[in-house]
Amino acid sequence: MSHTYEYPRPALTVDCVVFGFDGAGLKVVLIRRGLEPFKDAWALPGGFVQMEENLEDAARRELREETSLKNVFLEQLQTFGTVGRDPRGRVVSVAYVALVRPDKHPAKGDTDASEAAWFPLSELPPLAFDHDEILRVARERLRGKLRWQPLGFELLPEKFTLGQLQALYEAVLGTSLDKRNFRKKLLPYDFIVPLEQFTSGQHRPARLHRFDRHRYEALSRGGFHFEI
Amino acid sequence: MSHTYEYPRPALTVDCVVFGFDGAGLKVVLIRRGLEPFKDAWALPGGFVQMEENLEDAARRELREETSLKNVFLEQLQTFGTVGRDPRGRVVSVAYVALVRPDKHPAKGDTDASEAAWFPLSELPPLAFDHDEILRVARERLRGKLRWQPLGFELLPEKFTLGQLQALYEAVLGTSLDKRNFRKKLLPYDFIVPLEQFTSGQHRPARLHRFDRHRYEALSRGGFHFEI
Repeated sequence: MSHTYEYPRPALTVDCVVFGFDGAGLKVVLIRRGLEPFKDAWALPGGFVQMEENLEDAARRELREETSLKNVFLEQLQTFGTVGRDPRGRVVSVAYVALVRPDKHPAKGDTDASEAAWFPLSELPPLAFDHDEILRVARERLRGKLRWQPLGFELLPEKFTLGQLQALYEAVLGTSLDKRNFRKKLLPYDFIVPLEQFTSGQHRPARLHRFDRHRYEALSRGGFHFEI
Repeated sequence: MSHTYEYPRPALTVDCVVFGFDGAGLKVVLIRRGLEPFKDAWALPGGFVQMEENLEDAARRELREETSLKNVFLEQLQTFGTVGRDPRGRVVSVAYVALVRPDKHPAKGDTDASEAAWFPLSELPPLAFDHDEILRVARERLRGKLRWQPLGFELLPEKFTLGQLQALYEAVLGTSLDKRNFRKKLLPYDFIVPLEQFTSGQHRPARLHRFDRHRYEALSRGGFHFEI
């Protein structure tokens, strides 16, 4: 690589916006920074990309190291590179969005994060770097994607009620939806499969459903479009 | 910045996928490389991001330097960082999509590109680096976005016929559309404004239209969704 020394070389990081849904609202995983800069501030999990490491591998490694989260849905969001966004000098960050089921719990990992926890989006602490901007873009992306892709199933338990599904859409879109209209829209989608099981322990049992990924992918390959 | 030397530092580039529409098919701007690696091969316009330069500024500068194109619609696509994608060592590239009107013509700029030209997507030469993969992702993104955003107006002349608009959608989606159905879908969108002008010199004159960006943006802020 000796002939490449002439090129400008910013440092490169990955940052992960991990969304979860607790039945009522959206939440996000934050870590508390153990090192300067922004020591003790809350931040998105992330860190430097190694020279021999692919970008998504770096995002998964940092998530694992800082939050113990593994095997999550992960998708590249956008790259943030405004000059001055990091006090250490020029640092460009490739941001990812992760979607996580509610039974997954972040835990402090083995690196420079001193804590890891879920925060409701409505009660966020001040964030390090430009992480509030990254989070804003991630929420916008989630809103856009959820309308046209059945992403919600990555955020719900494996068996869910249509009420839970609607609550998720309402939380992401930030608006309330008409129940009858919502269910009518879901009807044509036979990849949302009703089960012979009901919720228990509630005053009125509700039917459980599951998401049939194979059926959805087959439809999807045929040019089908999901829309809520 | 002396305390940052410890971080791994890949080189960082931008690459631009510039789409145009010639009335029949989609085309893309390629430059012929004047330097190694891949000297004399065709490639997407692009180059190294400077240390004090924002990412989009770098993309616009490279476009200007290599193709003379200015003031174009530009949007970040995705970042490509697979280890081994560049023979010079670790080089991560932030890719952009540009949309350009047909009256804009690329021209050889003042840098390391020895030629710049439009190529129909159906007749592409072999491309340098992983630029065929970047181009594939860009086409997918364009297909996805065009259905839900009135992006097409960035690619058409300022005054266009509904036949031209339909031809553009057909070229991007790679499918033929029913004319009556297409026009019925456009009807509710009053940001597509019919003019009192018609095409001339054709056996049958067709009405010209224009896109009203202000009207669209006002609707858009109200949560309106465009769909074809």
